[in-house]
This record gives sequence, structure tokens and C-alpha cells, in this order.
Amino acid sequence: MEKDSPTWTLGELARLFGGELEGDPNYPIARPAPADSDDPQGIAFCESEKYLGIARAHRVGALILPKGLPSDGRPAIHVDHPRLAFFQLLMISGRPLPIDPGIHPTAIIHNSAQVGEGACIGPYAIVERGAHVGSNVKVFPFCYVGEGCTIGEDTILFPGVVLYQDVVIGARCIVHSGAVLGADGFGFMWDGSQQLKIPQVGRVQIGDDAEVGANTAVDRATAGTTKVGRGTKLDNLVQVGHNVEIGEDSVIAGQAAIGGSARIGSRVSMGGQTAVSDHVVIGDDVMVGGSSGVAEDLAGPGRYFGRPAINAPDGLRAMSAIPRLPKILSRLRELEAKVKKLEEGQK
Amino acid sequence: MEKDSPTWTLGELARLFGGELEGDPNYPIARPAPADSDDPQGIAFCESEKYLGIARAHRVGALILPKGLPSDGRPAIHVDHPRLAFFQLLMISGRPLPIDPGIHPTAIIHNSAQVGEGACIGPYAIVERGAHVGSNVKVFPFCYVGEGCTIGEDTILFPGVVLYQDVVIGARCIVHSGAVLGADGFGFMWDGSQQLKIPQVGRVQIGDDAEVGANTAVDRATAGTTKVGRGTKLDNLVQVGHNVEIGEDSVIAGQAAIGGSARIGSRVSMGGQTAVSDHVVIGDDVMVGGSSGVAEDLAGPGRYFGRPAINAPDGLRAMSAIPRLPKILSRLRELEAKVKKLEEGQK
Amino acid sequence: MEKDSPTWTLGELARLFGGELEGDPNYPIARPAPADSDDPQGIAFCESEKYLGIARAHRVGALILPKGLPSDGRPAIHVDHPRLAFFQLLMISGRPLPIDPGIHPTAIIHNSAQVGEGACIGPYAIVERGAHVGSNVKVFPFCYVGEGCTIGEDTILFPGVVLYQDVVIGARCIVHSGAVLGADGFGFMWDGSQQLKIPQVGRVQIGDDAEVGANTAVDRATAGTTKVGRGTKLDNLVQVGHNVEIGEDSVIAGQAAIGGSARIGSRVSMGGQTAVSDHVVIGDDVMVGGSSGVAEDLAGPGRYFGRPAINAPDGLRAMSAIPRLPKILSRLRELEAKVKKLEEGQK
Repeated sequence: MEKDSPTWTLGELARLFGGELEGDPNYPIARPAPADSDDPQGIAFCESEKYLGIARAHRVGALILPKGLPSDGRPAIHVDHPRLAFFQLLMISGRPLPIDPGIHPTAIIHNSAQVGEGACIGPYAIVERGAHVGSNVKVFPFCYVGEGCTIGEDTILFPGVVLYQDVVIGARCIVHSGAVLGADGFGFMWDGSQQLKIPQVGRVQIGDDAEVGANTAVDRATAGTTKVGRGTKLDNLVQVGHNVEIGEDSVIAGQAAIGGSARIGSRVSMGGQTAVSDHVVIGDDVMVGGSSGVAEDLAGPGRYFGRPAINAPDGLRAMSAIPRLPKILSRLRELEAKVKKLEEGQK
Repeated sequence: MEKDSPTWTLGELARLFGGELEGDPNYPIARPAPADSDDPQGIAFCESEKYLGIARAHRVGALILPKGLPSDGRPAIHVDHPRLAFFQLLMISGRPLPIDPGIHPTAIIHNSAQVGEGACIGPYAIVERGAHVGSNVKVFPFCYVGEGCTIGEDTILFPGVVLYQDVVIGARCIVHSGAVLGADGFGFMWDGSQQLKIPQVGRVQIGDDAEVGANTAVDRATAGTTKVGRGTKLDNLVQVGHNVEIGEDSVIAGQAAIGGSARIGSRVSMGGQTAVSDHVVIGDDVMVGGSSGVAEDLAGPGRYFGRPAINAPDGLRAMSAIPRLPKILSRLRELEAKVKKLEEGQK
Repeated sequence: MEKDSPTWTLGELARLFGGELEGDPNYPIARPAPADSDDPQGIAFCESEKYLGIARAHRVGALILPKGLPSDGRPAIHVDHPRLAFFQLLMISGRPLPIDPGIHPTAIIHNSAQVGEGACIGPYAIVERGAHVGSNVKVFPFCYVGEGCTIGEDTILFPGVVLYQDVVIGARCIVHSGAVLGADGFGFMWDGSQQLKIPQVGRVQIGDDAEVGANTAVDRATAGTTKVGRGTKLDNLVQVGHNVEIGEDSVIAGQAAIGGSARIGSRVSMGGQTAVSDHVVIGDDVMVGGSSGVAEDLAGPGRYFGRPAINAPDGLRAMSAIPRLPKILSRLRELEAKVKKLEEGQK
């Protein structure tokens, strides 16, 4: 499995990081590894004594350590910022999911669709009428690029992405497998005898440098456009309702649900399973802790937490007081008995 | 992107709505738009002064207004019910996701499967042995219609829908991309050394006029049938467990989870992320607010909310009291001190 | 739909179960059914008078009953353990989703991939370079087996499963439709002007005899390996973050979310919609009730419940006290007034 992985010597990595070598410069490193790995060809980073303690209990082959923190006998590289050195190593360790250049003969591209230079369209991918696939885009197998969709240059659609109609994706985006962009918003009108479907005729627009996680759904607008801004990252299994607008550089964690017409600002971070009600407005630079429930507008900047979400320190205090409720009840009962006795004594 | 969109003049739309025109009858309208849109060719509706205020801050081209509410200089149509006029416009604005008529040569249809008149089976779709695809059904690419499945007339399966075995879908249904109907219910039995899989041999049945959202999962029954009733709408990323039965015309919002063997009535509406425990029974005409947790039966009709879900006004009051818990604790402490002092005074 | 179902006489089933027959031995049984079914050819089990009561209100054809519990006139089989007899019946009632033997001519198998003896690769499935598909594996249509993936013998990938790179799946596993294994972990670093993507270069490893539900996502590790242990079962729409490790024989219900680097022990059971925060450690033999929020480590063995999750009896008590919060507030106010009055009386 690892036979294609690049391999370095510890000496090569030390030079790359501009770090100081401790131990054998020829020690072979196959890949980055976490501190609690037992991979003898892995190299992990430890920012502090605490993480070095974790590494000590495991057999990872080598360590990236801050200057001044001696290793435990294992070969090591000492640098100013171990995390950044590790990041450098991650950058050169990845290998892109392979796709052959050009348009695979089994891909079905509508006559009226345009495919840019250097784009790769994998086997069993479909690009519908009027779609524009930008240059150097990778469309993996089983992707469906619907009528009138536009995909900016260098964007990647991993296997099994579905874009309905009129979905616009910016440049350098990553859309993970199973993501569905542009399905109908959830709108019905009870007419007294049945749920009438409100036609969903709007669009979806994803800005440049955005990422959409696996099996995430971004619904088309009823009218107008559902927007995910430039640089915003959606994790897996996120639900983005119709007519939602999310600003730039926001980060929305797994299974979050954003109700219809909500407005989320820029540089917002939202923990997993957070729910945002329809029409709620969240300002720029807001952090919402995981599993929060946002039913009212949150001005930014600020940190919020809880169900309902309030400012984070209070929200944490409130949520962590919930386990004390039974005790609160018994203390109340006790007080009530005492007060009753006191009242009788005063009479 | 919009080049294929139908275009009207404001005068044409005024006649269509039976409304009164204010402004240029030749003003061109390309599409419906929300009130906060800046689309000069869009027309939005404002039901009240409040929404007109929103529109004022934006550059949407024209407005649909109630009679008696003057426009702000923009061309407008005045009608009795702006929302209904907008709905009319939505009805004529949609264009169906295109699919070629007939069976695409790359579709794989088992010899024993039956495909009705007018049905469209897209490229790279699969219809397995013994399946029945009704007349005028649209099966988009990458759909898998498993052995013995039945799809009623005029139903649409968007790209990438998977039906396992013996899944029955009614007429005029819409199943969105990534929905999986008929995967195994989640049943295991600990035998002292391992989790034995309880075979899931039942079926899934979806009534007429139902809708299933993107990436939603409806599990097959262990034995018997998991049922989603006529006219019921499931949003995206909903989980419906084995042997669940949902009545007619119910509306279940995104990421709701309905535990095994739960019974949900008709005309039930359920907010996003709501959890219903296994075997729970929810009556007809129940509304459950978003993010609620239903662990006990709820009789209908009625409105419920909260974790645990209780009647809605009390549930709202309870949930909104959670942030006051730290204050409750300090008030309790203060009272306890005062009562202690009073007790000492009385001795 | 049922024409291919196996059919038995009641007498045959009585012999199979080693049970005692009550009624016509030639009564035809087509399939197992739940007690509340009206299927005349179905046979249900009732463990007690209570379930027999449910069956009485329905028309299921025959019953499996404990010895000593007489039937209500319907043909029945009496056994020591009705549930086990029903399980036996389920075992012989399932029929596997059909797939033709061998490699379908439309499947695309990379030259460098290896496919074991007896493996079935369905139409429009893709096996990428360097992948190993074990013997007797079933790869259904629209599955993508990425570069360097390994699939153990007898494992089933239902239609539309995506494995990115270097995903290792053990033997006898079941992966349901829409599951995505190996998508990027959700890791970004704010550099002051944008969210830098932290490359995700690790792997995913699924142990033998595991099951992964429909539309579930298991992210690859940043570095190292995201692990799901032998015999562990994940339900539908579950999110497993990067570098998570789950032990053996654990059972994780629908829509649970497990944050990055969390450690879940063996024989853990976790209810639906439960959230586990990043880096949290849950010990062996822990049961976490549905919709719980686990933000701190939980030692095992033990039962936990609530948001935040605490030991189960206390957690149940705390959660069920939430609806009493408004009453607690009014009791507090009343006490405060009384105490004030008492203080004034004492002066």
C-alpha cells in the first residue's frame, strides 16, 4: 500500500525544515505519523513535554521537537515550530487521487457543453447541456454536472458528486464524494388537503477556494441564489437549506444544519451538529460551539454556545449546570420546608 | 446561465396574476427573485411594509405588492395575495432537469424488468431483474433500481438514487440524489462474543406524491414493511429506521432521525434535527419543533418542543430557562444562607 | 414482488424450530412478519401475552409463541425461545441482492489492480490502480475503489460506495450505499487571511466483520490511520472524523458524530445523534444513550446519558427535570418573597 509513498532520510527532512538533527541522518522516513503511532518509518511532532510523553509510550520512528526539548533516544529533528514543520511534511506527502488526463471515452459530454484545457473527465462522468467545465478541473467518475452548471478552473469533484441545474462553483474548490448541490429546497404549502410543492427555481453558487464535504447537501434557492462564499469550508453531512447565504472563510463542521434563508457571516466557525433556524442571521467572526442551537440572531464578533446558544462562557456554565437540576429540585424542596417552618415560628 | 429562462414583460405578468400594473408594462422580467435580491430582471413579492423595506435596500427590478401598498418608484404589480401570485410565477419559471426520452443505450435493463411507456432511463442507470418502472418515470444517471422494485408512474429518481430490493415507490414521487431506500435496518444481537447481524428481509414502501430528500436513508424492515405514506415529504439527510411507519402528508425536515418501529401519524410536521426514539408513537396533526427529542409517545393534535419534547409553550419556556441555570444556582445559595441566618435568629 | 420468496408449510417450520404445532400443518407461510402485520401468509413471534394482544388486533397468518401461551385460534408454533426461532426464520428468508459472477464488461479495472477468485465486480464499477479486491468480494455498480485500496474476502460494497485512496477494509464486511470512506479529514489553519487546508495524507482501516451504514462518512487520517475495529457496526449517516479509532464490536447508531482523534473503546454502544467531541476518550463497554453529547472522557464500563453526558440514571433525571425549569423559577421567586418577609419580621 505504501510502496508508492515518497521516502526521505531524516537528514533530508532536517535540511528541508531548516532544523537540527539528533541521531542518524540516514534514518528512513516514509510518512508523517501521529505521536501515538507505532510506525517505525513514521515521523511525528511533539510541541511539548506532554506530547513527547505520548510518543514515549509508542514506537513511532522519529520525532520533530522544539529546540531545547531533548529526544528520548529516538532520532529527531529540532525546529522552532514543530507544527509548521509537520505541516511542511504533510504538504509533500499527499499524492492526488489519480485520474487520467483528458476526457475518458465513457464520459458523456453534451455537445453544447464546454470543457476547458487540461480538464480531466473520468469514466462514467456526465456533463450536461450548456455546462462549462473550467480548465484543469478534475471530474471524477459518477459525477453528474447538470444543465447550465459552471465549474471554475482547478476545481475537483470527487467520485459521485451531483450538481443539479445552474450550479456555479468557483475556482480551486474541492467537492467531496456524495455531495449534492442544487437539489430542491424544502418548501411546501398546505392547501387544506395536501402539501403543495413550492417550485424551487433558484440556483446555488459556491465561491472560489471553497470545500464541500462528503454527503453534504446544499439546496438550490426557491428563487435567487443559495450562496457559499469564497474560502468557506463545509464538512461532511452538512445541510444547507434554500436561500442560505454563507460569507467568506467560514468553517462549518460535520452534520451542522443551516435552515432556509439563514445568513451566516464571514470567518464564522461552527461546531459539529450545530442547528441554525430558518432566517437567523449570524454576524462575522462568530464562533458557535458544537451541538449548539441558534434560534435567534447572533451579532459578531463573539463566541456562543448552548441550546439555546448564548455567549460562550454563560452557555458553558448553563449547559454544565443541567446535571445539577435534580439537586436543585431537592434543595428547593428543603428550603420550602424550612421557610414554612420559619413562617410558622414567626406567627 | 439564464439564457434559456423564459422572459415576460411586466404587463404579461400583471395579466397572468389578474393584478394592477404600476409602471412600464414593457419592463422585462427574467425570473422570480427574493426581496433582498439585486437582480434588475427579477421580480420579488412583499406582503407588507416590512418586506417592502427590505426590498428598498436592494435593487431587485420589480415588485408584487398587495393592493393599497404603493411601490417605491419601481415598476410593480398589485394583487390581492402577493404570495400566491409569486407562487404562480414559480410554477411557470421552473424547467425540468433534462433527460432524453427513452432508454439510453448505456442503461442496463434486466431482461425480466418492465419499463412503462414514456419512461426515460438515463445513461449509466441500472434496472435489475423483475423491477417495474412505471410509465413516464424518469430514472436519471447512476440510479440503481434493485431486484423486484416497483416505481409508479410519473415518478422521478434524480441522479444517484439507490433502491435495494423490493422497494415500492408510488406515483408522482420525487426522490433526490443520494437517497438510499432499502438498506439494511440496524439490528444486531450480542451473543456473548460478537454482534450477530439480524437479517433484514423486509421491504420499503413509499406512497404516491411523496418526496425524499438528498442523501436521506430509509431502511428496509427487519420483517414486514417500512412505510412512508402518500404525500409525505422527507427533507435531506433524514434517517428513517427499519419498520417505521409515517402517515400521509407529513413533513419531516432535514437531519431528523426516526428510530426503528416508530409510528408517525398523518399531517405531522417535524423540525430539523428532531430525534424520535425507537417504538415511539406520534399521533396525527402533531407539530414537533426543530431539534426536539421525542422519547415518549405524543398524542395528536398538538404542538410539542424541546429535549425532552413536551407541549410547545412549556417546552419553549423550559428551553429558554436553561441559560438562567447559573443564576438559579446563585439565587439558591443566597436563599440558603438567608434561611440559615433566619433559623439561627429564631432559636 | 414476493413471487421468488421461499415458502414453507407451518409443519416444516415447526420441525425446523423443534417446536410444537398448534393447527394446520399445511398452512402456507411465505415470510416472517411483525406482530402488527395483516399479512395472511406471514408468521410473527410473540414473546408474551402483551405481544399476543398486539397480534390479536391484526391479521398476521400464524404465530410463534412460547410454550404455555395458547394461541387465539390462529395456527401457531410453540417453542422455548420465540425470538430465536424468528431469528432462524429471518436467516433463511433473506435473499442476497443479485450480482452476476465475474467482472462485468463495463467495469473498469486498472491493469495493476488484483481481483481475487470468485469476486463479482458489477457494471459501471471502478477499481483503480494497485487496488486489491479479495476473493468472493461483491462490488456493486457505481462503486469506486480508489488507488491502493484493499478489500478483504467476502466483503460486500453495495451500489455507490466510494473508497478514496489507501482504504483497507477487512473480510466479511458490509458497506452500504453512499458510504464514503477516506474523504479528507476536516482540517484547516487560519493564517491571518485565509483558511489553509491541512493536507490529509493518512488512511482508513476497517476491521473484519464490520458494517458501515448508508451515506456514512469515515474520513482519512491527517497522518496515520482512522480505524474502525473488527465487528464494529456503524449505522446510516454517521460521521467519523479524521484519526478516530473505534474498538471492536461497538455499535454506533444513526447520525452519531465522532469528532477528530476521539478514541472509542470496544463493545461500546452509542445511541442515534450522539455527538462525541474531538480528542474525547470513551472506554470499553460504555453505553451512551441517544442524542447525548460527550465532551469529556467517559471511563468504562458504564451507562451514560445526556447533554452533557453523565452517568445514565443521573443524566435521565437531569434531562427530565428540564421541563420543570419554569416551575423552579416561580418557586424560587416565591421563596425569595417569603424570605424577604421573614427577614423583615425578624428585624
